[in-house]
Amino acid sequence: MSDLNVDELRRQVCTLHAELVRNDLVAWTAGNVSARVPGEDLFVIKPSGISYDDLTPESIVVCDLDGTLVEGDLMPSSDTAAHAYVYRAMPEVGGVVHTHSAYATAWAARNEPIPCVLTAMADEFGGEIPVGPFALIGDDSIGKGIVATLTSHRSPAVLMRNHGVFTIGKDARAAVKAAVMCEDVARTVHIARTGGPLQPIHPDDIDHLYRRYQTAYGQR
Amino acid sequence: MSDLNVDELRRQVCTLHAELVRNDLVAWTAGNVSARVPGEDLFVIKPSGISYDDLTPESIVVCDLDGTLVEGDLMPSSDTAAHAYVYRAMPEVGGVVHTHSAYATAWAARNEPIPCVLTAMADEFGGEIPVGPFALIGDDSIGKGIVATLTSHRSPAVLMRNHGVFTIGKDARAAVKAAVMCEDVARTVHIARTGGPLQPIHPDDIDHLYRRYQTAYGQR
Amino acid sequence: MSDLNVDELRRQVCTLHAELVRNDLVAWTAGNVSARVPGEDLFVIKPSGISYDDLTPESIVVCDLDGTLVEGDLMPSSDTAAHAYVYRAMPEVGGVVHTHSAYATAWAARNEPIPCVLTAMADEFGGEIPVGPFALIGDDSIGKGIVATLTSHRSPAVLMRNHGVFTIGKDARAAVKAAVMCEDVARTVHIARTGGPLQPIHPDDIDHLYRRYQTAYGQR
Amino acid sequence: MSDLNVDELRRQVCTLHAELVRNDLVAWTAGNVSARVPGEDLFVIKPSGISYDDLTPESIVVCDLDGTLVEGDLMPSSDTAAHAYVYRAMPEVGGVVHTHSAYATAWAARNEPIPCVLTAMADEFGGEIPVGPFALIGDDSIGKGIVATLTSHRSPAVLMRNHGVFTIGKDARAAVKAAVMCEDVARTVHIARTGGPLQPIHPDDIDHLYRRYQTAYGQR
Repeated sequence: MSDLNVDELRRQVCTLHAELVRNDLVAWTAGNVSARVPGEDLFVIKPSGISYDDLTPESIVVCDLDGTLVEGDLMPSSDTAAHAYVYRAMPEVGGVVHTHSAYATAWAARNEPIPCVLTAMADEFGGEIPVGPFALIGDDSIGKGIVATLTSHRSPAVLMRNHGVFTIGKDARAAVKAAVMCEDVARTVHIARTGGPLQPIHPDDIDHLYRRYQTAYGQR
Repeated sequence: MSDLNVDELRRQVCTLHAELVRNDLVAWTAGNVSARVPGEDLFVIKPSGISYDDLTPESIVVCDLDGTLVEGDLMPSSDTAAHAYVYRAMPEVGGVVHTHSAYATAWAARNEPIPCVLTAMADEFGGEIPVGPFALIGDDSIGKGIVATLTSHRSPAVLMRNHGVFTIGKDARAAVKAAVMCEDVARTVHIARTGGPLQPIHPDDIDHLYRRYQTAYGQR
Repeated sequence: MSDLNVDELRRQVCTLHAELVRNDLVAWTAGNVSARVPGEDLFVIKPSGISYDDLTPESIVVCDLDGTLVEGDLMPSSDTAAHAYVYRAMPEVGGVVHTHSAYATAWAARNEPIPCVLTAMADEFGGEIPVGPFALIGDDSIGKGIVATLTSHRSPAVLMRNHGVFTIGKDARAAVKAAVMCEDVARTVHIARTGGPLQPIHPDDIDHLYRRYQTAYGQR
Repeated sequence: MSDLNVDELRRQVCTLHAELVRNDLVAWTAGNVSARVPGEDLFVIKPSGISYDDLTPESIVVCDLDGTLVEGDLMPSSDTAAHAYVYRAMPEVGGVVHTHSAYATAWAARNEPIPCVLTAMADEFGGEIPVGPFALIGDDSIGKGIVATLTSHRSPAVLMRNHGVFTIGKDARAAVKAAVMCEDVARTVHIARTGGPLQPIHPDDIDHLYRRYQTAYGQR
């Protein structure tokens, strides 16, 4: 494997964990970011149970696509098997993020998808944010649930029932963006609905917004 | 155009974006501030998709009142057409702000104006904060909806349906203040109403408060 | 007047405004702290419409107990008349704070006192936090409403209807503490009640807690 | 007693109070952390009514297991008797934390346990977070209520009715973690339930998650 490549990804993934904290997506140590090593059957991920304050690029560990530790002094995140499954099943995915962010997890605790009633949600998620099945940690159940749900929706985010959020992206930064936007829309739609009935957006308008945003937003 | 004037506005608009972050009005890159260049058919605005951390005065772009890029290395905000329309239609406006701040956007997701039940709301908004029409990005629809709604209300803020907030001011700082106060009253009135019926303020008292605040508050 | 005394109070009051910001009690410039000058018919207070970032001890102005500016280059807070009335009517009061903190103001927008269902609320407020009358700015109406309400309750905080919070204390720091605790209990009791019926505390227990806290808490 | 040991604990406990502030668990001075001195009938605890900003390792006081001040210049926390009772009754406990964190205290104000509907809650608490009895400060009532409730549940956190949260741990850091996670799940489950009925987790799954987390999470 290219050490240069891996070291750069460790730095990126270390820095991106600070975005989880800054955007109020995580409590204590409960959330993690990983990134696929391009051209290798490897990914880098947070070590288990380490405070975000104590994360360094060197502490980020390297795993193969079975989730087995390949390089690093610490045990990988307890969610490593789920990340590994996503990388095996979805070759276009370059980054995965997992959080228990409060508003998104609240929808998951009700087993209820977030309806698409905001143009920003149409832009980023292309429709509702779906709920995946209840699954226990310890085997491929969580990974299978994530992949089965995401491959049948445009959304880069899935709410795993009674658990929390997994997001994907072309790289780790895109997956972090999806995690931030998921909590933002989960919160806004929750607040909106506690005040009364939501105003729907027509599916054609959602399609229009999604296609435009995916091609025209940001710098080329 | 006066380079001195434009450079100073770029610095101001760059700094004011930090107020959007500090006041919790924006997630990721979703919000923007613009300022009209006095005496010119130009305004300065945030580039599209750039992190607030990475904004510099130099990265702020200059557009003409059709929203066409005139100066700058980056693509302008995807909301540039809406800002441009407001500057064309409302010559007294010197600054425009757009956010998806959560509580204000929640009212917009229900297509419901925020009732004026706080003296601070009477002061700044002179009555309810109105909702504008649903409009798709890509032409003048959003700009037209903003202008049609604001020209029939005293409020410097409009909630665009299923979308978010646009505010105006004599300059960019005043528009940012309106965006901050809009979210503050959207939140307080939301919290209030989840606990029971709201106590109205008599329209004459709203008028009295609005007139006094617009003339007597702050330093002369 | 003793310049030394006044200068020290200006420093204290300047610093205490930062506590309003840190404790999320204020948006933009909407909140102010004042302190009586001991042994003089004077108090120091925030100037009107100045950002908390820009406050300096020198910018804090001095007023007499009619609310007339005695020393300082800026216009005093638009709430000066209310502060002045409290100092005239309640000689034991050494500090006054005014905010529109969101949860407390939400109760005020419903004209509803906050019921005493927390031991911390019994400690600090000795019972419910009462609501004062609706009153327009511009004369002594607000001051009269504050004093009439506070003199008939043990609470150092009053929720002025459709407006916000005024708190008093033996000095400005005690009034700031009351403002912080008022928002904290307003938020906790609001959250509690949105989930179901509240558990009352027996009035005798409230009395016991209040008396103990007022004599036994903190350092002697 | 070992001065070295006590000094190290004072430093730890001082630092851990900053975590209460950072995680938004405390307003003003209302929350405290203590740590048992290993091998001694002593514990260290916050002094009463001191601002978190002003805490230093030297200001942390030492008490015996009756709650009597043994070393230090300041009066111990007004909650010292409750901490002392826990250390006397539960020899395996090395740290105790008390807060009035808003969401957890809201459940306590309704006398309602937090149902276990999140996998993260099963992990850390092994089931619901129980409510302890209403108890007045001044004798062993609070301590007895804490111990009676915690010894009949797996949860390291108890919601004392109309009061707030007490958490325990093998050391002070573990008790702080439990306090942070308690508020996090109290908030998420509150938000979830305001939106509709909660999805339960099967008790066997809760058992499975709890056992796994207690043995397999983090670094060995």
